[in-house]
Amino acid sequence: MDTKEENLDVVSILKQNFPVFHNQDLIAKMAKEARWFKHEKEETIVDFGEYPKWIPLVTNGAIKISRADDEGGEIFLYYLYPGQTCAMTLNCCMVDKPSEVKAIAEEGTEYLGLPRKSLPQWMLEFDEWRQFTLETYNERYENLLATIDAIAFQKLDERLLNLLKDKSIAKGTNEIEVTHKSLAEELHSSREVISRLLKQLEKIGKVQLSRNKITVNLG
Amino acid sequence: MDTKEENLDVVSILKQNFPVFHNQDLIAKMAKEARWFKHEKEETIVDFGEYPKWIPLVTNGAIKISRADDEGGEIFLYYLYPGQTCAMTLNCCMVDKPSEVKAIAEEGTEYLGLPRKSLPQWMLEFDEWRQFTLETYNERYENLLATIDAIAFQKLDERLLNLLKDKSIAKGTNEIEVTHKSLAEELHSSREVISRLLKQLEKIGKVQLSRNKITVNLG
Repeated sequence: MDTKEENLDVVSILKQNFPVFHNQDLIAKMAKEARWFKHEKEETIVDFGEYPKWIPLVTNGAIKISRADDEGGEIFLYYLYPGQTCAMTLNCCMVDKPSEVKAIAEEGTEYLGLPRKSLPQWMLEFDEWRQFTLETYNERYENLLATIDAIAFQKLDERLLNLLKDKSIAKGTNEIEVTHKSLAEELHSSREVISRLLKQLEKIGKVQLSRNKITVNLG
Repeated sequence: MDTKEENLDVVSILKQNFPVFHNQDLIAKMAKEARWFKHEKEETIVDFGEYPKWIPLVTNGAIKISRADDEGGEIFLYYLYPGQTCAMTLNCCMVDKPSEVKAIAEEGTEYLGLPRKSLPQWMLEFDEWRQFTLETYNERYENLLATIDAIAFQKLDERLLNLLKDKSIAKGTNEIEVTHKSLAEELHSSREVISRLLKQLEKIGKVQLSRNKITVNLG
């Protein structure tokens, strides 16, 4: 990331995906210290218990954040889309602790990684960075509360439909290649229950099912 | 809070409950700008949709934080104990938005309220305050993740026993005055199910039941 051409590239991609940043000194530091990361579909970016070293500013694709229990159960929390960063990672980096969630690339995911060691200084130096951090924390609280709402209050068929809608946004298409088994894992349910609910959703016109593919009717 | 004697009082209570603060300038500002709040049992401190004006530093009793859905369903999230503050409130105050959770006094609750208008300046001025804010965010993320774990992965009897244990810590006694109906509301379940589970817990020696009172065996 040390040639002038690459720096200019970072600057324009930041401008496009993170228009919240205007401060030239901050942008210059980001361009100088950041690294590009690209991940294939389903690649693990950060696993439970790992210490993240880079704060991801997502510029393409999506990152799926999920939570696990001790017995290998897993539950989907939320997606990070372009223009967003990970509050969990920010927080882990600021208080120096390992990740309690898992981050997986959903689809040809790209992000700009900011080095954790720079963050404490940026917190002091740049109003914009401080504000961005606080807004990120706020958004992620809302995501976690929405997850709690969904698990505690929503019926499983609503949660399933919302997960499919999230996936279609994350993948940029309403034709989703996914197995009933993996949907069941993400919702901590069983394959049989998910298959039954998908058939119900098909009957009322919310989805169309075909082999290993689900088409979501977003209209 | 403007007499010298009261200021000294705030300083010593801060020292006792929040030993994390050492900076004399910060402590002096807290003592000068803070207000004392006392709440009776079950009094609402902040309701959904309200803009909190004071950040609570809990010094006595406990504050119960819960979440509701649109149809009046409610679910317990976590308790704030002495030595803790509310990440939701901190965040609401920093980004100027209404509360998405409800805060209720559990038992003769007292806290030192810090005025929201001072926080942005303290963030800049005091390392200690910035660190305290970040640690608080981190603790609350962990609480929310634990809630998600509990709802998604734990059985209802485990959640019920954990809620009773939390209550006995919050109330400072293992004899809890509570109805089966209110426990059912906090866990978003039905009175019948909770009564059945309590009888099971009694059978295996985890609790003793009597009229409107539950004794928790913490050993």
